[in-house]
Amino acid sequence: MKFVTVKHQGKELPGVLKPKESAVYFLRDVLGEDAPNSLLSFIQGNEVPTGKESEIGADEKSGFNGDVIEKIRGYISDTKNTPVLLDQCEMLAPIPRPLRNIICLGMNYQDHVKELKGDDGRPRPIPKVPVYFGKMASEIIGTGGVIELHEEVTNSVDYEVELAAIIGKSGRDIPIEKAFDHIFGYTIMNDVTARDLQSRHQQFIRGKSLDTFTAMGPTILHRDFIKTPVRLDLSCEINGELRQSSNTKNFIFDLPYIISDLSRGTTLQAGDIIATGTPGGVGKGFTPPKYLKSGDRVVCEIESIGTLWNKVAKRG
Amino acid sequence: MKFVTVKHQGKELPGVLKPKESAVYFLRDVLGEDAPNSLLSFIQGNEVPTGKESEIGADEKSGFNGDVIEKIRGYISDTKNTPVLLDQCEMLAPIPRPLRNIICLGMNYQDHVKELKGDDGRPRPIPKVPVYFGKMASEIIGTGGVIELHEEVTNSVDYEVELAAIIGKSGRDIPIEKAFDHIFGYTIMNDVTARDLQSRHQQFIRGKSLDTFTAMGPTILHRDFIKTPVRLDLSCEINGELRQSSNTKNFIFDLPYIISDLSRGTTLQAGDIIATGTPGGVGKGFTPPKYLKSGDRVVCEIESIGTLWNKVAKRG
Repeated sequence: MKFVTVKHQGKELPGVLKPKESAVYFLRDVLGEDAPNSLLSFIQGNEVPTGKESEIGADEKSGFNGDVIEKIRGYISDTKNTPVLLDQCEMLAPIPRPLRNIICLGMNYQDHVKELKGDDGRPRPIPKVPVYFGKMASEIIGTGGVIELHEEVTNSVDYEVELAAIIGKSGRDIPIEKAFDHIFGYTIMNDVTARDLQSRHQQFIRGKSLDTFTAMGPTILHRDFIKTPVRLDLSCEINGELRQSSNTKNFIFDLPYIISDLSRGTTLQAGDIIATGTPGGVGKGFTPPKYLKSGDRVVCEIESIGTLWNKVAKRG
Repeated sequence: MKFVTVKHQGKELPGVLKPKESAVYFLRDVLGEDAPNSLLSFIQGNEVPTGKESEIGADEKSGFNGDVIEKIRGYISDTKNTPVLLDQCEMLAPIPRPLRNIICLGMNYQDHVKELKGDDGRPRPIPKVPVYFGKMASEIIGTGGVIELHEEVTNSVDYEVELAAIIGKSGRDIPIEKAFDHIFGYTIMNDVTARDLQSRHQQFIRGKSLDTFTAMGPTILHRDFIKTPVRLDLSCEINGELRQSSNTKNFIFDLPYIISDLSRGTTLQAGDIIATGTPGGVGKGFTPPKYLKSGDRVVCEIESIGTLWNKVAKRG
């Protein structure tokens, strides 16, 4: 089950894709008057509160209201309900305005750590603990959206394909074995980065947070449709040239560890977005570096989730 | 004019202090049906959109709806309107749930940079560009709130008094000379920090984002009541012992520069909170370090704004 946000007749609407993906059912049609007006509200509103797992009975996965998923499933399978064709809609990021900064991981694939050099030109060590950072995004761009080059402030805009997990159930001190219960679903993120700002400012946030530097989508795949542990091929192509190609089994720190570690003392919230790091093959890793330039077409792909593509331009 | 958020009869209510500060006027009484239910909504709802400065006529400062400030002023000065006594209320953080992560500066006072040592034990250089980082806070604690020690994850909880500016008008590429127009007001923040997590994870966010690690308040002082450039004494006392004492004139990067620099390519939003860094005297700077312990009373003070005090405990 794939969740999307689209623009249709001037309105931003959350919905669910028809299985063959050419059409969308709007949540307002599926859920009627109770329908939330964004996917973020939908996720927040269907969180099963901490400690209430027992009340939802046999659904051992818990963490998210299984009834609403069943209701959507029923609606979709009823052929009387007709979806709206996707070509009458503009695809947006599934969560166009995030709850707060996106939680990101740096250096979570060995080949990516190896391709990065420290300020002294030497390879960096494999991190012993996760390197977290935050990424500001007033507006997340969706598939088809434009990544701005921001030439006034940077000359080294780089791509990073990543699997992102969306939290579906808030929690703190989450045990590793319960971590997947806290995930609502998965999406693709391009963690676009200005490499010069990233190193000049020491902390990563400045170089990660230029407008249009977060691309996400096209869909959020509900967790019930992904086997755990999560082992998905992911790749990034620039103008048809394969640059990044790996599998999430190559994580240095896997998702259950990340969620458990990060939530020690810090409450994760339903709607939080956790981007799990990028594999080797970023522009900075080449000699000379292969940074993005105007006119480039960036295609990020993750198995089972879909394809997120963006064009690069001087202005958005 | 000092804005507050209080809990009164079980409800969280935004309001404005009576000048002698012993009582509060609730915005719902001042503004009637149109009253927002939080200070954040109030700030967002009264932003004067970019490019519309001319429409508000003579108010050259612009950036925030001057009419609503005048309306509040009129209400307060009318003796027929009776405020609610503060001792019938619980003070909360003025913005208990921030729009997104708090934008913080590291190393923005020379004496603080000098007291910090790098991993190699040597003093750090004075930064040539601002060191930004983000701080997650699901809930910001107010004056009187409890800072948790989080002994399961850290043994080095430290205090940092800071002046925080609240953005009142969104913008990108803000020129230095227009920066103050984008500020709604000022408050006090204690940027509580787990030093061990801060260094272990390389990027600061993990050690800055434990629950209860953001204390803020007691009020947001509207910008019209602060002279620019902003030169305010600030201090922090632990159990009556003065630890930090400086003035915001000692900033390495001042507020106009920060707002202008940070907004180059990145849209700042009305409601964003920018914490401007802490002066020397933090616990880590002493030999041996003087970290917070259970039972400590932390008092942060900034001239004209007020006093933010918190107690320290093993559990919140």
